[in-house]
Amino acid sequence: MMKKLAMGIDIGGTNTAFGLVDEDGNVVAESKISTEKFRYFDDYKPYIETLAAAMKELISTQADCTLIGIGIGAPNANIHSGKIETPANLWKFENPADPRPDTIRIFNFVEDLGKYFEGIKIMITNDANAAAIGEMVFGNARGMKDFAMITLGTGLGSGIVCNGEMVYGSDGFAGEYGHIAVESRQTGRQCGCGRRGCLETYVSATGIKRTAFELMATMTCDSELRSIPYDKFEAKMLSDAAKNNDPIALEAFERTGRILGEALADLTAVTSPEAIILFGGLANAGNLIVEPTHRHMEANQLGVFKGKVKLLMSGIQDKNVAILGGAALIWKQYLESVIENY
Amino acid sequence: MMKKLAMGIDIGGTNTAFGLVDEDGNVVAESKISTEKFRYFDDYKPYIETLAAAMKELISTQADCTLIGIGIGAPNANIHSGKIETPANLWKFENPADPRPDTIRIFNFVEDLGKYFEGIKIMITNDANAAAIGEMVFGNARGMKDFAMITLGTGLGSGIVCNGEMVYGSDGFAGEYGHIAVESRQTGRQCGCGRRGCLETYVSATGIKRTAFELMATMTCDSELRSIPYDKFEAKMLSDAAKNNDPIALEAFERTGRILGEALADLTAVTSPEAIILFGGLANAGNLIVEPTHRHMEANQLGVFKGKVKLLMSGIQDKNVAILGGAALIWKQYLESVIENY
Repeated sequence: MMKKLAMGIDIGGTNTAFGLVDEDGNVVAESKISTEKFRYFDDYKPYIETLAAAMKELISTQADCTLIGIGIGAPNANIHSGKIETPANLWKFENPADPRPDTIRIFNFVEDLGKYFEGIKIMITNDANAAAIGEMVFGNARGMKDFAMITLGTGLGSGIVCNGEMVYGSDGFAGEYGHIAVESRQTGRQCGCGRRGCLETYVSATGIKRTAFELMATMTCDSELRSIPYDKFEAKMLSDAAKNNDPIALEAFERTGRILGEALADLTAVTSPEAIILFGGLANAGNLIVEPTHRHMEANQLGVFKGKVKLLMSGIQDKNVAILGGAALIWKQYLESVIENY
Repeated sequence: MMKKLAMGIDIGGTNTAFGLVDEDGNVVAESKISTEKFRYFDDYKPYIETLAAAMKELISTQADCTLIGIGIGAPNANIHSGKIETPANLWKFENPADPRPDTIRIFNFVEDLGKYFEGIKIMITNDANAAAIGEMVFGNARGMKDFAMITLGTGLGSGIVCNGEMVYGSDGFAGEYGHIAVESRQTGRQCGCGRRGCLETYVSATGIKRTAFELMATMTCDSELRSIPYDKFEAKMLSDAAKNNDPIALEAFERTGRILGEALADLTAVTSPEAIILFGGLANAGNLIVEPTHRHMEANQLGVFKGKVKLLMSGIQDKNVAILGGAALIWKQYLESVIENY
């Protein structure tokens, strides 16, 4: 029997990574192309052409295999329409003052890539949703019907699964938990979305950095962090300082964990997940962030939910989660259709 | 062909209403028994016996009908376990100082009622979930796959539907949107759940009354509300005063609408519903509450959701929504199984 493989693609601002993934979640072959080289609006068509050619080359290295589909994780991608809608860091107008409206920057990705792969199933969704599906098919959410994935990178992304199905919402854009209000919409921190007080301005690699700088202003203690300018500050420096018992770093993790824990208690009140899975750069700080998050989540749970919700780290964090997530989109549907037709 | 009917039951603190409902949502026969008469813990067994007898009597009035199932909406009911768990106002210990723990006050409702209806499908869920399913099968959410129901009574209940399925969560208790934090957990209003700052302490018939009393303290204007003591104050008086342009009543609706609107924008970020449906006593104030809620929801939506979410009034508000909701639990499953077996 021919070996079945799904192609997973992760479109990042720097590179587009892709790989062939088998039913057990092994990436049997992978490759990448530069996204940055094709960063302007007019580069989109050549980008698709280059990507398709590189994908075909990778596929040709695998003898005796059947490609069951192509799954893609990308910012602002919509599973219903197959489009990437006005991504902040992809295929921008070369002239920042370009007068064309953002409605022009809608990329019909599934259709455009599909021209090179006739008859092959292609699906696309946003990065956090792809990560959640990766976790469900290959990671720590296997067997779970109700869970949430929180990705803590530059921003805060979320993928929510209820009744065994990804929650995409009526328009395909559900799961924007990074943009709930945790502080006043009038006086909270400014967010990249144009509003104030969003969760991700406090809880993300950028958010905890902002908290550390706020604490340098409000606290008077010595701290190794005081020598680092804002522009050079990376979240990793906070973990290192916290391990040295730096009081500002420790307090930054405590506050970040409090805000995340309170927000996860509220998420529990909505969907009552079996587990919440953390993933991404800030989650790499491990117990520095997990311990206060779990403590504050429990302290803020409604009685009926206390002690019930598991807070887990990603089970595919060390692997190429984005490639696995894309491939899992295909594998999930493939395995379900096999069961239905059995 | 025999006419198919589902029994819907609504267990309230005062009465238990029940009725036989056809496929089109007509209540063809209804009746009720007193719940209050059986309000203590030891009354539970006689209550079940009395209810079963009254149900059988109602069924006997319908010639040529088949009972396809019994669906129940009740406080603290769990669809997974079929139990009612520690309800605040039902079957309490006669002596308030009774030392038995609350774990004793778990009522195996589906099993206990089932003894009187062998071979008949029985389902139970909480009131807000039943109302949402009623709306989906018989009301304004017909044809919708993603929507949320918000019930504004003494408290705030919610029922959330994603991908065409009720979100019950891993433990059956999802949809407690009344208990998300909208103010500080340290300094917000005290909630019946033992915490502070919950949405329902601001947005509910009780919540808007508390706001009116706060405003009487902070504002100096004349108001017809100043003659009413807290104990005698009903939410209906606020609607009446607002219609007379009472400044405190108008401001109370504005603030309540702001808090609800902000909370619904956050709910949109999680599940991206096609519509949010309002129901219950406070929703009866109509545009007094709907207009500010809609305005603040729109003002606080993340860009991608602006102008997308419909804010609707219940389509079964005038009918017996609780009986219809219970019956809809049965009808939804029945109709789906007919389609599957077609």
